[in-house]
Amino acid sequence: MTELSKSQREHRDMANAIAALSMDAVQKANSGHPGMPMGMADVATVLFSKFLKFDPKAPNWADRDRFILSAGHGSMLIYSLLHLTGYKAVTMDQIKNFRQLGSITAGHPEYGHVPGVETTTGPLGQGISNAVGFALAERHLNARYSDDLVNHYTYVIAGDGCLMEGISQEAISLAGHLKLNKLIVFWDDNNITIDGPVTLSDSTSQKKRFEASGWKVIEIDGHNPTQIANAVRRAHKSDVPTLIACKTAIGKGAPNKEGTNKAHGSPLGDDEIQATRDARGWPHAPFEIPSDVYSLWKRPGRKGRKAHKAWEERLNASKQADDFKRSMAGGLNEGWLEKFQSYKDSIAVEKPTMATRASSGKALIPLTEALTDMISGSADLEGSNKTKTPATSNEIQAGNYGGRYINYGIREHGMAAAMNGMALHGGILPYSGLFMVFMDYCRPSVRLAALMGIQSIYVATHDSIGVGEDGPTHQPVEHLASLRAIPNCYTYRPADALETAECWELAVQRKDSPSIMALTRQNLPAIRDDASTNMCARGGYVLRPGAGADDIVLIASGSEVSLAVEAHEQLAEQGISARIVSIPSMDIFLEQDEKYIRSVLGKALPKIAIEAGIRQGWDALIGRDGGFIGMDSFGASAPGAQLFEHFGITVEAIVEMAKSKVKG
Amino acid sequence: MTELSKSQREHRDMANAIAALSMDAVQKANSGHPGMPMGMADVATVLFSKFLKFDPKAPNWADRDRFILSAGHGSMLIYSLLHLTGYKAVTMDQIKNFRQLGSITAGHPEYGHVPGVETTTGPLGQGISNAVGFALAERHLNARYSDDLVNHYTYVIAGDGCLMEGISQEAISLAGHLKLNKLIVFWDDNNITIDGPVTLSDSTSQKKRFEASGWKVIEIDGHNPTQIANAVRRAHKSDVPTLIACKTAIGKGAPNKEGTNKAHGSPLGDDEIQATRDARGWPHAPFEIPSDVYSLWKRPGRKGRKAHKAWEERLNASKQADDFKRSMAGGLNEGWLEKFQSYKDSIAVEKPTMATRASSGKALIPLTEALTDMISGSADLEGSNKTKTPATSNEIQAGNYGGRYINYGIREHGMAAAMNGMALHGGILPYSGLFMVFMDYCRPSVRLAALMGIQSIYVATHDSIGVGEDGPTHQPVEHLASLRAIPNCYTYRPADALETAECWELAVQRKDSPSIMALTRQNLPAIRDDASTNMCARGGYVLRPGAGADDIVLIASGSEVSLAVEAHEQLAEQGISARIVSIPSMDIFLEQDEKYIRSVLGKALPKIAIEAGIRQGWDALIGRDGGFIGMDSFGASAPGAQLFEHFGITVEAIVEMAKSKVKG
Repeated sequence: MTELSKSQREHRDMANAIAALSMDAVQKANSGHPGMPMGMADVATVLFSKFLKFDPKAPNWADRDRFILSAGHGSMLIYSLLHLTGYKAVTMDQIKNFRQLGSITAGHPEYGHVPGVETTTGPLGQGISNAVGFALAERHLNARYSDDLVNHYTYVIAGDGCLMEGISQEAISLAGHLKLNKLIVFWDDNNITIDGPVTLSDSTSQKKRFEASGWKVIEIDGHNPTQIANAVRRAHKSDVPTLIACKTAIGKGAPNKEGTNKAHGSPLGDDEIQATRDARGWPHAPFEIPSDVYSLWKRPGRKGRKAHKAWEERLNASKQADDFKRSMAGGLNEGWLEKFQSYKDSIAVEKPTMATRASSGKALIPLTEALTDMISGSADLEGSNKTKTPATSNEIQAGNYGGRYINYGIREHGMAAAMNGMALHGGILPYSGLFMVFMDYCRPSVRLAALMGIQSIYVATHDSIGVGEDGPTHQPVEHLASLRAIPNCYTYRPADALETAECWELAVQRKDSPSIMALTRQNLPAIRDDASTNMCARGGYVLRPGAGADDIVLIASGSEVSLAVEAHEQLAEQGISARIVSIPSMDIFLEQDEKYIRSVLGKALPKIAIEAGIRQGWDALIGRDGGFIGMDSFGASAPGAQLFEHFGITVEAIVEMAKSKVKG
Repeated sequence: MTELSKSQREHRDMANAIAALSMDAVQKANSGHPGMPMGMADVATVLFSKFLKFDPKAPNWADRDRFILSAGHGSMLIYSLLHLTGYKAVTMDQIKNFRQLGSITAGHPEYGHVPGVETTTGPLGQGISNAVGFALAERHLNARYSDDLVNHYTYVIAGDGCLMEGISQEAISLAGHLKLNKLIVFWDDNNITIDGPVTLSDSTSQKKRFEASGWKVIEIDGHNPTQIANAVRRAHKSDVPTLIACKTAIGKGAPNKEGTNKAHGSPLGDDEIQATRDARGWPHAPFEIPSDVYSLWKRPGRKGRKAHKAWEERLNASKQADDFKRSMAGGLNEGWLEKFQSYKDSIAVEKPTMATRASSGKALIPLTEALTDMISGSADLEGSNKTKTPATSNEIQAGNYGGRYINYGIREHGMAAAMNGMALHGGILPYSGLFMVFMDYCRPSVRLAALMGIQSIYVATHDSIGVGEDGPTHQPVEHLASLRAIPNCYTYRPADALETAECWELAVQRKDSPSIMALTRQNLPAIRDDASTNMCARGGYVLRPGAGADDIVLIASGSEVSLAVEAHEQLAEQGISARIVSIPSMDIFLEQDEKYIRSVLGKALPKIAIEAGIRQGWDALIGRDGGFIGMDSFGASAPGAQLFEHFGITVEAIVEMAKSKVKG
């Protein structure tokens, strides 16, 4: 064995500390993935010790480099790094309680649990796709606030699984198109997946694939510190995003498991761990890190702290300091609510008949004018989604990052993941449009937004069979139910222009959850003329009381509310008093206290719900004996108005059912 | 203008017929996409007239070439082709009633509506991904039944949208890996999406991208018949899948709209249509096809009819004829049910304590032995999903297409779409495994399976917080609700090994719907000892009657049924008679007649539902006043048993709630 130089010894010890903590913690938990942290310990050591700009004492420093572990199952890699570099929250006890109830060191890294974890990963392909949003946010804020305040890299570690998931292609192609040159992805090219070698299922040349989308690709030995460092330096000089393909051995150093799927997803076992200690030259007991190794690992944080201090001085000297701080803290610009109230007042007077997607577009004009952090976009349906406004019309393209509209292309999943990345980065409130039926395409990213508690707003237009001729492939039927099912995710389905404005007002204020605006393609009449109270704020409300003692309650959302209102009038003529309840957000309504809910629904009255979607979920409001007028199958291809007739979602059907319920 | 040769004139007239019908039908419907059919009319004319093997009089001929319009919005292309080539169902009246209620010519091509439409397309990227399944089915059946019976191509027309969707990457890389050389994709390289030029959002070199995944790429002028034909001939000689990149002009021939997004998604208008007729040299009235053009278009079908007859002779001479016919008709092998009954009987005696994922793996042993069309696989979780059996252990790889196990890789979406393609091709009953939480990744394909009414079976293991340490990213919470929400899609959540076998028995017999098996990671005790009746067949049943007059009904599914059974015993000791209802499939249960439902649920009794998922959907059974023990948030990372305690899904909690309900 050749004598190691001092720096080589230091590198070895630092990397060994990661590998040892990772295999020990997985062993203690009797659960987890040791192989990936062991294989990428060299890369991570070089990145964190020589390049990554961070301050462990201020994990949320706005201009830190972002590090994203897209291969989230290798969570012990990041926990080890955070512990070793001095993030206070990540104590040795936390490491020892990896994957245990109540510890912050969850099985997969979770945003909000651990300072230094920038995004929740584990569902493969999400992290690398979030990273596109991070890198784009950085460039946008750089354009807005200058190099002085925003100038950092986004680094990613991605595995074969991330690259096999389709979402990665959407991310890669978008990043390449936008020339996000401060995005640097390390690919852990270990040729192993859970089931065995990658060659069981894939033969793709990732080098050619990334180059096809305009990336720079650098291939290195992922265990050679010099090659790693040189690759990062070259990536820093690139004017396009960079993939650093790191040839590694999974479970590096484990004599019997290295390079095999046996090192992937389960503890190595005590014997193999001991043998690995010997092979890697790490004589210390489990969870024991010698003080000199801790000292080595404290250096990068100290360097970062200096950089942080210099940055703070620049910030304090900046005229933009206040706005920058407000923006990064997710604050809404002062005065926006007053301005928006006058828009709502004008709508209440105007009482326009229009599609709620158009109402949304109209509401977004004053909103985006007032809220300067709102960044717009669409998955190639700008004309349909009405997301572009005068204030956001300047399009973001390579070299014009100061714009406020993103052409996401036909990439709903990549879009939603990028929106998550922007929201997580801070400084941006992302909203973007797509057909509601294609919320299915981005559902995994929506779920993660809900799990992380971050604010992404989806403008989901064409929300029912009202889509019309495009047919059942493009008509949501089960989507209101399936979106309402996601915890901490708020779906709004406004009934007219005023409710649409009210829902937008709620969505932009809901900082800890994603919001989905379900909007019609077809025109709807106005149902209200008073904007003094945001009636959507409690999710549902009595829109029209019955005349005197109520005989029945008609409950509807969105486009069906105006049908209920018409039924109310016809029933009144026949001496039946129908209360009309509008439910712009069932999610919010079901969160209200029972007293309010009962007061709106009228406990003992017969009930009918009307929604151009499936019944699932409505039983919570109407009970098993309630009537339901909606869909119980997929839609069909025909003009929208005909489809409402065809599927029996009509004023006549409501009146008939109401009469039979009242008489029965 | 140079004089055209006879064959050039014929090509022009044939292509013009497509273009004219397309723009006329869209104009009459005042809705639709004329530009794509006009731009791809030349390619389609060459393909259908010179290469495609089909018999319009027998649209379901097993050995026909498959043609898949992945860019489904260009539906008038395929409707025109089917009409012109003589598919009886596609009359001129149908063309004139494009996108109208009751016509088969829906806005997007729908499988089952129109003979000749092989799969429902419209959601972008699905068709090209189905095609991988078609092409793989072809090679598999070829290995099983020889060139004599199965030897055909799968042709696809895909647009930029298809190639931008991430699912296409999963499809492309899988097809390249498997060297599916009879898969030929025409890319309509028209550089236009709805919002404008592709360059708004993408800069990918598709040539390099496909080559990176091992495809042959041929670039041609998509309006040059000679180049088109030569490209197909070259593709036929390739030993890998082929992309034919066809440089085209969208809305070809429209003087003011050709080559722009104005030709994409709306009628051209009467003036532009007239100008296009002039420019293309098509003097005929709307919907008028001269008889000589019809004659030209009848030729390919006649050629196909001959090939079909020759094939029928080969089939009749084949010893495998009966098995082949059974298989292609979706018939289950004779005697399977008896064999499977004896497996169920043995399980009823054995009463094993095991995870339902393991029970599933055990049930699959006799099933796959008996049902020779079952093709297995997993999205890189074979060890976890337990989908591989002795009968399916031979792995499909390039050159070994006769195997019965597919390594789909980390590609849930591509997997589900490929499964759809195999199911649609016929001869295969695809089932495959993934973690249940990642059903979100393939949801768009599952929805299409349900819409088409085809049989794909998803083995969705790790169905609750029972996942344990992997944490909330990997723990389904809202998934049972969201999957039950999909019309014509059946979710099963068996409670023990016997119910698991019963659910499998139902799933393999349900030919017109996808099925989802929700299975535990953790062990479950046996709850039944009698296999004489398939108790799951009605979706829910009384598992334990109360002792005498019932005081309360406890309703549960899957892993929570055994908790309810234990509560039943504890309550009995305290003098409370609790009826236990098992709901292995809420989808099926809610389809039963009201009388049966009431008889199981006991109309007036207080009710508690227990499921380690959200409440949504359960109100249909328990009502607003019913009790619910389950989840109302995301899960957490800890050992599974601790999580059930932590979230209060315990026998104690059931007993407590039951007591308070009975006393209250």
